[in-house]
Amino acid sequence: MEYRFSDTIDSFKSSAVREILKLTQGKSIISLAGGLPNEQYFPIEAVKDAFNRVFEEGKQVLQYGLTEGYTPLRQSVAKHMERKNIHVGVDDMLITTGSQQAIDLLTRVYIDPGDVILVERPTYLAAIQIFQSHKARIISVECDADGMNLSDLELKIEQYNPKMIYVVPTFSNPAGKAWSVERRLGTLNICKRKNVLILEDDPYGELRFGGGEALPSIFSLDKHPEGCGVVYTSTFSKIVAPALRTGWAIGDPQVIRQMARAKQAADLHSSTMDQQALHQLFQHFDLNAHIDLVRTEYEKRMRQMVDLLHRQDWAGARWIEPKGGMFIWVELPEHIDTEQLLKLAVEEGVAFVPGISFYADEPQRNAMRLNFTHTDYAQMVEGFTRLDRAIQKMLQTV
Amino acid sequence: MEYRFSDTIDSFKSSAVREILKLTQGKSIISLAGGLPNEQYFPIEAVKDAFNRVFEEGKQVLQYGLTEGYTPLRQSVAKHMERKNIHVGVDDMLITTGSQQAIDLLTRVYIDPGDVILVERPTYLAAIQIFQSHKARIISVECDADGMNLSDLELKIEQYNPKMIYVVPTFSNPAGKAWSVERRLGTLNICKRKNVLILEDDPYGELRFGGGEALPSIFSLDKHPEGCGVVYTSTFSKIVAPALRTGWAIGDPQVIRQMARAKQAADLHSSTMDQQALHQLFQHFDLNAHIDLVRTEYEKRMRQMVDLLHRQDWAGARWIEPKGGMFIWVELPEHIDTEQLLKLAVEEGVAFVPGISFYADEPQRNAMRLNFTHTDYAQMVEGFTRLDRAIQKMLQTV
Repeated sequence: MEYRFSDTIDSFKSSAVREILKLTQGKSIISLAGGLPNEQYFPIEAVKDAFNRVFEEGKQVLQYGLTEGYTPLRQSVAKHMERKNIHVGVDDMLITTGSQQAIDLLTRVYIDPGDVILVERPTYLAAIQIFQSHKARIISVECDADGMNLSDLELKIEQYNPKMIYVVPTFSNPAGKAWSVERRLGTLNICKRKNVLILEDDPYGELRFGGGEALPSIFSLDKHPEGCGVVYTSTFSKIVAPALRTGWAIGDPQVIRQMARAKQAADLHSSTMDQQALHQLFQHFDLNAHIDLVRTEYEKRMRQMVDLLHRQDWAGARWIEPKGGMFIWVELPEHIDTEQLLKLAVEEGVAFVPGISFYADEPQRNAMRLNFTHTDYAQMVEGFTRLDRAIQKMLQTV
Repeated sequence: MEYRFSDTIDSFKSSAVREILKLTQGKSIISLAGGLPNEQYFPIEAVKDAFNRVFEEGKQVLQYGLTEGYTPLRQSVAKHMERKNIHVGVDDMLITTGSQQAIDLLTRVYIDPGDVILVERPTYLAAIQIFQSHKARIISVECDADGMNLSDLELKIEQYNPKMIYVVPTFSNPAGKAWSVERRLGTLNICKRKNVLILEDDPYGELRFGGGEALPSIFSLDKHPEGCGVVYTSTFSKIVAPALRTGWAIGDPQVIRQMARAKQAADLHSSTMDQQALHQLFQHFDLNAHIDLVRTEYEKRMRQMVDLLHRQDWAGARWIEPKGGMFIWVELPEHIDTEQLLKLAVEEGVAFVPGISFYADEPQRNAMRLNFTHTDYAQMVEGFTRLDRAIQKMLQTV
């Protein structure tokens, strides 16, 4: 049998992260590469209790569910989002298998081959992978510490007539930055004026450090729901646990309905067990208090990593202290190619994600993404010792 | 905002089944339409026990999982399939969000717009929907009670150069038939010779009536795994419960690897909670005994429905007594359009799926699919009384 695959498979190149994860499956490697939340803070007793409450409701809990998602969970999520000043009903929402599926479904119903999607520079690597799999043309917009450069955004819209723009404005992956309110508003205004749909990916928004006021999502800045210029997606992976693999998308009911039809074809519905358990969790567990605990712990770890960064002698390395999320984006001297560095680092027993993975075009080669949520402090210190050995080698050879 | 959807959405027409399910949400309607397993036989205590065993293993059970699926579950499934004379390893298998996702992923990596897929006449309606969403050209092959007509298959392969053929050879949805071994072998030989990949969808294979020997899957008739001409998919939805939304695909590791890459983009992985629970279920529950119970009960219900059919005076209605599965396919006199009939039936308080839903082209308009697994006997009797009233009205007016 000679298999005749579709053209699509050309886009399914195994990602750098995937290859790294394979390498780091050896026990002796300390991984600062992954995007894993810390198991220590998984509310396992509450999750177990939630599942048992579901089973108490009787055998019908094991039946097929709605494509749009378990209605009481949609109600619970809608209520939860009110504290973010987001006001939606169940018809404005679709439950997905992680927020990754929300990105995939929206791309499926919105993007034809060759259509342009604008992204941040750098941006989330899995989003690039999804957009490529749908044969979109991906164009990067220049960014600084405050978010997207609005002049470059206008310019790129004029130049490429994009259908959609993909952004992670709150504690972005990989750069860990938080857009200013002004940039959020500016992006929304420009995109609405030019009829460019904004896909706002917000997996980390609740992991805010410093205790200040929450930044408004771009979605919350628009009038909702009809005619909304934003589709917003988030997930329980970072605030409860990834194994339940449940995310959601909200937007104009017209867009949500199309995404639901695509989902009906793609997998009919997501796990109803997980959805029912998450609804029970909302009823019997203080999720907001739990989120406060997680972000306090993650902030502590972030500060530990920033301290370690300050102590290194990496010839002018730069980073922005993240205001939330799970990652620090470190820029090394320009002549250091972090893809090369990774090979040395893995030999030394430490892994990270090289910057190149986060660019749709013209990658910055001297950056790396470090995760601070998954390793404990002792591991982090040892990881930095190893990473320093690799960097010193690079600094000497070039 | 004026939304600029992709061409794909033209294929996401709301299906007849979906519309019917909406209609039948009113309490007074007896539905013979759905494809729901009977809640009564969901092994809820065993599933609950399985989840609790997962939680005993500690917090890491809530972490992200592998795209390919939870390895111990893949091992359990491989072992389970040995009794079907299927011998595969974990690298030949991908865990999916229901078998529906397996169909979608294979289509994604194998079919370019305009590529031809051959299907049975009639065939599973959700498969048609998936193929259309990927802009495949769907061509039907003539079938009889023993399976696909091999001459017509050869003819259509010559004529259309299809890349793939989609079949449900064992207790098919909707027709409830079981292909003969000869047709299975014939189809395999023709397709391998002509380099046409077979997608064998087997959700009902274990729901066999009559206690005779199991029919060999087409997959088991081929040499495995390298160069295999078949991708086989099945699901836990019918033998355990749909809410866990877990299916699997097996095939040549090269094909499985491409599907895994597509899945990595589509949703990263399926619910790890459900996968771990299903693995525990395999360890601590007699799944085979449970399957025997379910098929005994379903066979009883099938016989009750066949008895009811014999008692009707429907002017030469015909059906093939199913040898397994969940459905009976009933052909009414030629001048009866079952789509029209459905409207009358719903007025009378009963629903079914009209034949038209199961054809990619040139539909047979006088057939209907009746589900016998979900209603109890009293409901089934009442459902037939209502259905008879609708049919008599139709018979009188035409």
